[in-house]
Amino acid sequence: MSISVSKNFKLIIEYDGSAYHGWQKQKGDVTIQEEIEKALHTMTGEPIIVNGSGRTDAGVHALAQVANFRCLTSLSPAIFQKGLNSLLPDDIVIRSCEQVDIGFHARFNVRSKTYRYRILNREVPCAVKRQYAWFIRKTLDMDAMKQAAAHMAGTHDFKAFEGSGSPRAHTTRTITRIELIRETDGYLFIDVEADGFLRCMVRNMVGTLVDVGLSRIHPDDIPAIIESKDRSNAGPTAPPHGLFLQQVRY
Amino acid sequence: MSISVSKNFKLIIEYDGSAYHGWQKQKGDVTIQEEIEKALHTMTGEPIIVNGSGRTDAGVHALAQVANFRCLTSLSPAIFQKGLNSLLPDDIVIRSCEQVDIGFHARFNVRSKTYRYRILNREVPCAVKRQYAWFIRKTLDMDAMKQAAAHMAGTHDFKAFEGSGSPRAHTTRTITRIELIRETDGYLFIDVEADGFLRCMVRNMVGTLVDVGLSRIHPDDIPAIIESKDRSNAGPTAPPHGLFLQQVRY
Repeated sequence: MSISVSKNFKLIIEYDGSAYHGWQKQKGDVTIQEEIEKALHTMTGEPIIVNGSGRTDAGVHALAQVANFRCLTSLSPAIFQKGLNSLLPDDIVIRSCEQVDIGFHARFNVRSKTYRYRILNREVPCAVKRQYAWFIRKTLDMDAMKQAAAHMAGTHDFKAFEGSGSPRAHTTRTITRIELIRETDGYLFIDVEADGFLRCMVRNMVGTLVDVGLSRIHPDDIPAIIESKDRSNAGPTAPPHGLFLQQVRY
Repeated sequence: MSISVSKNFKLIIEYDGSAYHGWQKQKGDVTIQEEIEKALHTMTGEPIIVNGSGRTDAGVHALAQVANFRCLTSLSPAIFQKGLNSLLPDDIVIRSCEQVDIGFHARFNVRSKTYRYRILNREVPCAVKRQYAWFIRKTLDMDAMKQAAAHMAGTHDFKAFEGSGSPRAHTTRTITRIELIRETDGYLFIDVEADGFLRCMVRNMVGTLVDVGLSRIHPDDIPAIIESKDRSNAGPTAPPHGLFLQQVRY
């Protein structure tokens, strides 16, 4: 007979966000957190809370969302991974499950997160994998975008890039890396690593960088936009389907 | 005033086949050919027939299907491309449109076609891009599969790999290239180039190669399977969603 003791499990989760109303559980909407909690309930019979590293918005994807849950169980991490993957719909995959120190918390212990935004910038759109990039026909000025991005790096009050709906008391964040990568076939990646993000912050930054790339905003206007703390001065919100939560560091 | 003369247009078409009952027009089903013909009808007011290089089955994708159509028109290839792309659903994209010699026919003039089959062979499936690969958990024996593939190369009667439903009078084809490519993250590509293909031929070859990779068929049994001309001796039909029509040569 195996003994049940309180254990803490860390999950790394990949998901295609297309069909979901984001990560976070909310009444009346299908969310990724809810799907995983339902599957854990099926496996254990217990009401288990899954703590994600943070929310992702409706339609946003993740290659490596991190979450943890605690429960009294004799089940091994391997059994949890196998069981969850057989219960979950095929647009949510548990990439790994490991037992961790009981104190580990996927949200409170985050050191940094990295997002990648995928843009397809060429004359003709794609059909295959169109779910995973924002198609922009007009040629973007990469040099101007890189200049603008450099103004965003570092520690700033990012209030001007915060989406409405769930304001934070503190809106200062530190961007440790922001990089524009030109790929083959017209793809352009924008990678942003920070100690934390406000709601819609990456998508608002990307929308602003694209406005710079289309000469609607001058790169040197970025510091004034940041200082204004006024959302209406920044560019539009980039669509969710180009955004991927890429990595969470602890 | 521009003068309308009979012209012949060559299209290169990318599509995500997930939502379609294949390329070929057929009553009661949504097909790619039908969507393009409908859009051409909207543009020209004429009933226009689009000749594809060949069928693709339900659920199969194409990066570069080729088709042609003839019509009396003053419209330029660029206008056709633009107009079609604005009328077509976003899982069908006209990658290029050019005017070609009136004698060109996308099916009759084919010299070779190349298909790529994408397999994801690792412990854990993927969520993102899962629509575009066949997930196989058990480790495939690549060396055995390569030996088997070598037996398939060359000129053979491929009757044993022909799907039911639309038998051809002549079932001899020449495979000029068959290559297994190991990619990162557990992906495995099987590329097949031939002068022509029977119905479901690539998927039946891939199903057979996977059976070899799982030690259900010995690689040296392939010649006898081919010689038998009996479909029941070959492996299962690989699912359609891993298959891409990659290139058509003229």
